[in-house]
Amino acid sequence: MAELGEFALIAKVTSGRTQAPGVLLGPGDDAAVIAAPDGRFVVTTDMLVQDRHFRLDWSSPHDIGRKAIAQNAADVVGMGATPSAFVVSLGCPSDTPVDFVQALADGMWAEIERSGGSIAGGDMVRSPLLVISVTAFGDPRGRAPVLRSTARPGDVVAVAGRPGWSAAGLAVLSAGVDPERFPEAVAAHRVPRPPYAAVLDLPADAPITALTDVSDGLLADLGHIAESSAVAIDLDSSALRDRALEPVSTALNADPFDWILTGGEDHAFAATFSGAVPAGWAPIGRVLSGSAVTVDGAPRSGPTGWESFGSGG
Amino acid sequence: MAELGEFALIAKVTSGRTQAPGVLLGPGDDAAVIAAPDGRFVVTTDMLVQDRHFRLDWSSPHDIGRKAIAQNAADVVGMGATPSAFVVSLGCPSDTPVDFVQALADGMWAEIERSGGSIAGGDMVRSPLLVISVTAFGDPRGRAPVLRSTARPGDVVAVAGRPGWSAAGLAVLSAGVDPERFPEAVAAHRVPRPPYAAVLDLPADAPITALTDVSDGLLADLGHIAESSAVAIDLDSSALRDRALEPVSTALNADPFDWILTGGEDHAFAATFSGAVPAGWAPIGRVLSGSAVTVDGAPRSGPTGWESFGSGG
Repeated sequence: MAELGEFALIAKVTSGRTQAPGVLLGPGDDAAVIAAPDGRFVVTTDMLVQDRHFRLDWSSPHDIGRKAIAQNAADVVGMGATPSAFVVSLGCPSDTPVDFVQALADGMWAEIERSGGSIAGGDMVRSPLLVISVTAFGDPRGRAPVLRSTARPGDVVAVAGRPGWSAAGLAVLSAGVDPERFPEAVAAHRVPRPPYAAVLDLPADAPITALTDVSDGLLADLGHIAESSAVAIDLDSSALRDRALEPVSTALNADPFDWILTGGEDHAFAATFSGAVPAGWAPIGRVLSGSAVTVDGAPRSGPTGWESFGSGG
Repeated sequence: MAELGEFALIAKVTSGRTQAPGVLLGPGDDAAVIAAPDGRFVVTTDMLVQDRHFRLDWSSPHDIGRKAIAQNAADVVGMGATPSAFVVSLGCPSDTPVDFVQALADGMWAEIERSGGSIAGGDMVRSPLLVISVTAFGDPRGRAPVLRSTARPGDVVAVAGRPGWSAAGLAVLSAGVDPERFPEAVAAHRVPRPPYAAVLDLPADAPITALTDVSDGLLADLGHIAESSAVAIDLDSSALRDRALEPVSTALNADPFDWILTGGEDHAFAATFSGAVPAGWAPIGRVLSGSAVTVDGAPRSGPTGWESFGSGG
C-alpha cells in the first residue's frame, strides 16, 4: 500500500462503483455534492477502532466493512430518513495489504445494497492501527424526523429486529466456543442486519411517536427515549423472551435477558406508537408517566448497556 | 475521562455552544438534521492521526482543534460553498485529561468563528492514540460548485493565501530551531488561516473557472486542476517569490521555492479566472493547452507534494 499511494489506492477501491442518484458529484474534487431534495439532510457519524470495536481475528474485512456501514445507516433510519450517501475515512498501517482494503470496501458496498446510498468520498491516511470513520447522510423525504423526545404516556413500545443476538455472538467468541455451534449468533455479531424496511416502509400516517436505533442496549436506548421524552417505560419480560436464544445462553451459562436488555450493537430499532403496532414490529411494553425504564414494573439491576468510555464497554 | 464517561464528556464539551441557524437539530438524537436551502450540500472529510498529522509536543490541543476544522472548512470553501456545519469523531486514550478534550473542542469552535457553521454532532471512542475525524458540510448558496475540472486555456492562475509558510514552520520545528525566531512561520504551520473570504466574498459573476484548496502543495494541487481540466499550467516564479519567507529559508539553508511549490497544509486557495483577477488574489501563472504543470516553462524536478501514503509524506 505504501508503494501504491493514497490516490492510486482510492482510485482502485472506488473504480467501478455506481453512485446513488442523489450523489451529484462523487469522489475527485475538494468535496462531494449531495442532493437534499426536501431542503434538509440527516447526518450521523461513528468511529470504529481496531481491537476496540472489531477484532481482525474475529471478523473478516468484508464483515467489518458491512458493520461500519450498517451501524451508521441504522442511525439515519433511526430518524425515519432514507440513507442517501456516506463518506468514509480510513486510517491503516502502511503494510496493510491492498486486498484487505479492497475487501473492506466491498463489504461496505455490500451493505449499501441493503441500505441504499453510495460512498461519495472519503480520506485515506496512515495510522498505526486500523481506524474507520463513517459519516452517513439521509433524506427525510419530506417527513418530520422521528425523534427520541416525543414519546407520550399511553404509547406502546415496540421493537423491530432481534435484541440480544449480537451480544450472544460476542459471548460465544469471547468464551472461545466454536463459532460453528451458534452460527446465527456469531453472524449477528459480525454482521448486524438492521431491519431498515421496518422503518422505511412505514406509511406516512403510521402512528409512530418516537424512534431510536438500538445500539447501546435496549435498556440504555429506551432510557434515552424515556429521559428525552420525560416519560417512564415499562417492559414486559414475557414479550422480550426469545426462545431461539436460549440454547446459546444455556451453553454459556448466561442469562439471556442480560443480552436482550443490555447487549450492544444489535442495530435493531425501538419505537413508540400511539395506535396499532405495524407489521414487522413486536410490542414489548408501555410508555407511562414518570421516569426511568423498568421491566415488569421493577428496576433492572446491573449494567444498563454499552458506553464507549467507562466500565460499561 | 474513563470515569466521566462518553455521554457526560460529550455533554461537557457541547454545553453552552450556539448552533448555527442551519443546524435544525443538534447533538442528542440518533442523528443531526441540517438545512440545505438550495436542495444540495457539499461534504468533505479528513482524518488526523497523532504523530502523523500533528504532534502533541509541537501543537497545543487548541491549535490541533483549529487546524482540524480549518482544513475541512477550506475544502468546503474550495468548492465555492459556505461552511454550514461539522460533525467530529474523536478517538482518544482513556487517560486523556478532560481539559485536553475541552481545549481541543475550544480550538474547533474558535476556528468556526472564522469559517461559520457549528459542530452538530459526533462520536467519542477509546483509542490507543488520538484520532480526529472531521466531516464538514457546505451550502452552495444557489451557485454551481466551482470544480477543479473546468479551467480553460487562456485563464489566469491566481492564489489567495501564503503558499510555503506551513512548510517553513514545519522545517523550523523539525530542525529544532527556536520557534520564537520565526513565529509567523511556526504559527502558519500550527494554525493555518485559510483566507475563506477571498472565495466567499467573490461576487456571483466573478470570472472564476476552477478552484481548489491548496493542501497537498501548490504544484500537486494545480496538477489536480491541470489533469482534471485536461490543460497545462505554467507558473511564473517571479510572481511566486515571497521575500518575507527568505529570512527563514536562509537560516535553514533551504530553497524557499521548495516550500512554496511543494509544501503541504497551507490551506490557501488556487483558482483560475477567465477575466480580471479579483481583489485578494495574486496572479501566479497561466492556463495553456497541453498537460502538466511547469514553472517558467520547465518541469520542476523533485517531490511534488504531500501524499498520505508513499514517500511523499
